Amino acid sequence: MNAIGVDVGGTKIAAAVVTPEGKILKEVRYPTQAVPPNRLIETIAGAIREVKEGSEVGGVCLAVPGLILAAEHKVIFSPNLHEIEGIPLDEEIGSRTGLSVTVENDANAAAWGEFRYGAGKDVDHLVFITLGTGVGGGIITHGLLLRGAQGAGGELGHVTIDATGPRCGRGNHRSLEELASGTAIRRRAREVASEQPRSELGRLAIERELLGEDVTRLAQEGDEAAIRVLKETGVWLGIALAGFVHIFNPEVIAIGGGASRAGEFILEPARNEVQLSARSPSRDLVEIKEATLGPKSGVIGAAALARGADGEYVLGYSKRLT
Amino acid sequence: MNAIGVDVGGTKIAAAVVTPEGKILKEVRYPTQAVPPNRLIETIAGAIREVKEGSEVGGVCLAVPGLILAAEHKVIFSPNLHEIEGIPLDEEIGSRTGLSVTVENDANAAAWGEFRYGAGKDVDHLVFITLGTGVGGGIITHGLLLRGAQGAGGELGHVTIDATGPRCGRGNHRSLEELASGTAIRRRAREVASEQPRSELGRLAIERELLGEDVTRLAQEGDEAAIRVLKETGVWLGIALAGFVHIFNPEVIAIGGGASRAGEFILEPARNEVQLSARSPSRDLVEIKEATLGPKSGVIGAAALARGADGEYVLGYSKRLT
Repeated sequence: MNAIGVDVGGTKIAAAVVTPEGKILKEVRYPTQAVPPNRLIETIAGAIREVKEGSEVGGVCLAVPGLILAAEHKVIFSPNLHEIEGIPLDEEIGSRTGLSVTVENDANAAAWGEFRYGAGKDVDHLVFITLGTGVGGGIITHGLLLRGAQGAGGELGHVTIDATGPRCGRGNHRSLEELASGTAIRRRAREVASEQPRSELGRLAIERELLGEDVTRLAQEGDEAAIRVLKETGVWLGIALAGFVHIFNPEVIAIGGGASRAGEFILEPARNEVQLSARSPSRDLVEIKEATLGPKSGVIGAAALARGADGEYVLGYSKRLT
Repeated sequence: MNAIGVDVGGTKIAAAVVTPEGKILKEVRYPTQAVPPNRLIETIAGAIREVKEGSEVGGVCLAVPGLILAAEHKVIFSPNLHEIEGIPLDEEIGSRTGLSVTVENDANAAAWGEFRYGAGKDVDHLVFITLGTGVGGGIITHGLLLRGAQGAGGELGHVTIDATGPRCGRGNHRSLEELASGTAIRRRAREVASEQPRSELGRLAIERELLGEDVTRLAQEGDEAAIRVLKETGVWLGIALAGFVHIFNPEVIAIGGGASRAGEFILEPARNEVQLSARSPSRDLVEIKEATLGPKSGVIGAAALARGADGEYVLGYSKRLT
């Protein structure tokens, strides 16, 4: 049966009706910034009602960035969506739409999308990492979405990989997120630009604020400074991935998110690092590649998770069960 | 039905008949060092035949340290047991005993023992860490033993937590194992002893080689130098645990292995570090405590994994199924 996936992001709210084959039939979008105060729940519910019109759907799953208590259908902390923190969204949005509503971390939902229809569709063991403003993660192990006891699991970005390196603002040890997110790439690009002012990266940094896509474009054009920034990012990513290879012994690691558009500039050094740091047999099996669904993985994965939404979690093996 | 668990260790081979309730009925032990060259397989098979005599048993599972390709019943690498590397143990030992034989990493087997009968018996989400000569790990998530695609998963000791810290001999980034194993405790104890020669630890180090249990005993007697060594170990452990809390959102983290006998000297700083580094809701849920089965967890867990040994893996949920 078709279901609705909702991507509740800091920039947009996108609701889509998705088929069991992962095809989007209809989609509506609202910019999050345009939502008036105290109207976020109503806007999400409105988007669901609008996209649902004329369709038969089984249920809804909201994919939300941040710390999720999926077992209670609550968002505990979400950087740009404080308004929905702590609210039982199954009740609040369920009552406004007449549908069964669950909540999932956005990266877990995207991981499920990649597992069902994307980079992991032929395997049972997938690690998904999204390199965006932050770093998100989602794990499928033995065909099962690793949610953990409260549905808060899969937070691969918060793993410390450099405990005694220079401290960040937050005072924490350096995590994967602090070293390999899109934000980290921009920060490192500014540093390298000022060290190498004659590079293309250095010249552009004098003109204007560097964006993540500038670094990728300049790397593609052969600028060594930009290539260096992405290579360093890839090495940090690879150090974390080597650990995930030992923990999960996955068949595929799929990298998504905006920064993954840098492609091989990041993936090749990451793969090299995994070959250096990880061990057989896990190291020999794993394939590290780009995710294939792009920014739609969240809504598609969420809809696939909603499909069993009769109060029961869809924990896993759905590739076979549906 | 009863089953046989075998702990194939670098110092001893212990085979035991274990009941479905986790009770050891009979056990035999052989020192590994006394095994003549090329007789390791025969010695293991002999121990199984000996312990089996007079009992009806369902199957055998071997718990082996090192890198295991459980899907093919092979040991890929085991520090002190090179003789059995690469050999299909289901065939070699199955044919010598007439029993169905599987192979599991020793820490995974111990984790399963703690899950079924020990520190994790009331939960569905358990992370088990063993602090011994090395650091081993085993994960139960959603009631399922996390084996990974080849049965090589759960290697929590090989996760990098201090990439840019001082390099170790192997040239690798510093892993949990290199920072919090029994070996690491002894190394750090030697360093602290030479920095603080007037401490009890310092005095003992002049007399003789320090052992792990010396550090624990001196800490219990109030020696600040020994306490410091264990506290540092606990902080390193806690940095890794904070990551595991984010990844697995477990209800319990159980710490076993020889070094866990230091108890609160290690666990308290580890807990503090998790409270500092990890986030809600996972951080608030997790209970970090000592494992309860002690050195028997390997044979007990292995026997519980063998119980379904009809060629099929016992992947999980056995607390409910048996």
